[in-house]
Amino acid sequence: MNLNDTIKTQLNHRSIRHFKNQQLDKETLNTLYEVANHTASSQFLQQFSIIHVTDKNKRTKLAEICNQPPVSENGEFFIFLIDLHRNVKLRQEANLDDGRLHTMDLYLQGLSDATLAVQNMYLAAESLGLGGVILGSIRNDIRAVSELFNLPDMVIPALGLQIGIPDEEIQQKPRLPLSFKVFENEYQDNLSTQDCQLPQSKDMGLVTHDLTVSGNNATSLLPHYTWLHHWVVGSTHLTNTFTH
Amino acid sequence: MNLNDTIKTQLNHRSIRHFKNQQLDKETLNTLYEVANHTASSQFLQQFSIIHVTDKNKRTKLAEICNQPPVSENGEFFIFLIDLHRNVKLRQEANLDDGRLHTMDLYLQGLSDATLAVQNMYLAAESLGLGGVILGSIRNDIRAVSELFNLPDMVIPALGLQIGIPDEEIQQKPRLPLSFKVFENEYQDNLSTQDCQLPQSKDMGLVTHDLTVSGNNATSLLPHYTWLHHWVVGSTHLTNTFTH
Repeated sequence: MNLNDTIKTQLNHRSIRHFKNQQLDKETLNTLYEVANHTASSQFLQQFSIIHVTDKNKRTKLAEICNQPPVSENGEFFIFLIDLHRNVKLRQEANLDDGRLHTMDLYLQGLSDATLAVQNMYLAAESLGLGGVILGSIRNDIRAVSELFNLPDMVIPALGLQIGIPDEEIQQKPRLPLSFKVFENEYQDNLSTQDCQLPQSKDMGLVTHDLTVSGNNATSLLPHYTWLHHWVVGSTHLTNTFTH
Repeated sequence: MNLNDTIKTQLNHRSIRHFKNQQLDKETLNTLYEVANHTASSQFLQQFSIIHVTDKNKRTKLAEICNQPPVSENGEFFIFLIDLHRNVKLRQEANLDDGRLHTMDLYLQGLSDATLAVQNMYLAAESLGLGGVILGSIRNDIRAVSELFNLPDMVIPALGLQIGIPDEEIQQKPRLPLSFKVFENEYQDNLSTQDCQLPQSKDMGLVTHDLTVSGNNATSLLPHYTWLHHWVVGSTHLTNTFTH
């Protein structure tokens, strides 16, 4: 494989949720923001913004909204916003209507802009030896988040990103093989019933434990899809939690 | 600033639309796919897939749908799909209903998964000296794209990504200053009317020309928002074209 530092960082990715009690310095934060700011945006409309949440009370409320206690703990927390407000304003000041900005197309453009910037900033952090986790769960209550951060009309929370100095060791979860995910020229339905056979539920419990807690190499014993199967079939709480 | 190879690549980003007549080798493609496959996904549900479009006729049709002739020309073309189909199937085979997978929440999770993977794979390509462009314009006609690639129910085109060996020199566009985009603890409406004053339209034409064609350093002469203003106020065709 073609390996360089960037690709090594990418292939080594895992989600980190627990961080040391140490803030990032201003230079690092500025670097991360510059990376986000240099991400591609749809039509160069730059329809996203970032709120850095340093207020302890707001972090506590966010943790409740996300239903994830670590959100209120260590690590920096960023909210990535779909931001069509700036462009509405520019058009209004030029005496142009802003009708086109209210369409689903533009909303999806803003969502893409924000999401691409999240991944870029996340990877920049990882390249600096930091870790983090993306939180879709800020969408659990968009109205509450909007009130908490005084969001104007046309500004909508997209994703959260928590970043810090890792304070946990996490084993990487196995991915589905590429043959299930990458096709040529047309969609291929490559997942067969046979692929989906579950190990005994007791084994599943052990695997879960091994992968997330003890970190040993249990993954080689089981097919790659086990984890996916576990989440899709076994999960009773399909909320917006990002993991890797 | 904290600079390493990854961050240098990120800060150097620009969109490339014209490529040399040379295909990527299998090893490179595989590396790019592995990077996409190692991107974070919401709840580890891995709800995206990729179609590599090598069929010339399909590329021609895509170029028509996107209204962008270069799509049919050099460079590899990938369609990133929101893919809830696999998980519907897993749940059906376990005799569970798939109702929850039909909600907007899960659609947005799949869209996030696909979009994060696009950015990760795009940056991996750039780190290898390749260039590319993201194409939201595959959403111009989702039905046509779905038919062209035999997409089953619950599989929806998210973004296109074209990658190859650059055959053009593009100057980076100036971004809005961070003060307009990054806030602390609450949204700040930092864009004032004064910031939005346009240069003469003739000058604007020259700037556009300078930035996109001749590549000289005209950017320093004008405020950063000029380009944004140009697109937001001046554009009559707000389609899904990504640019940087």
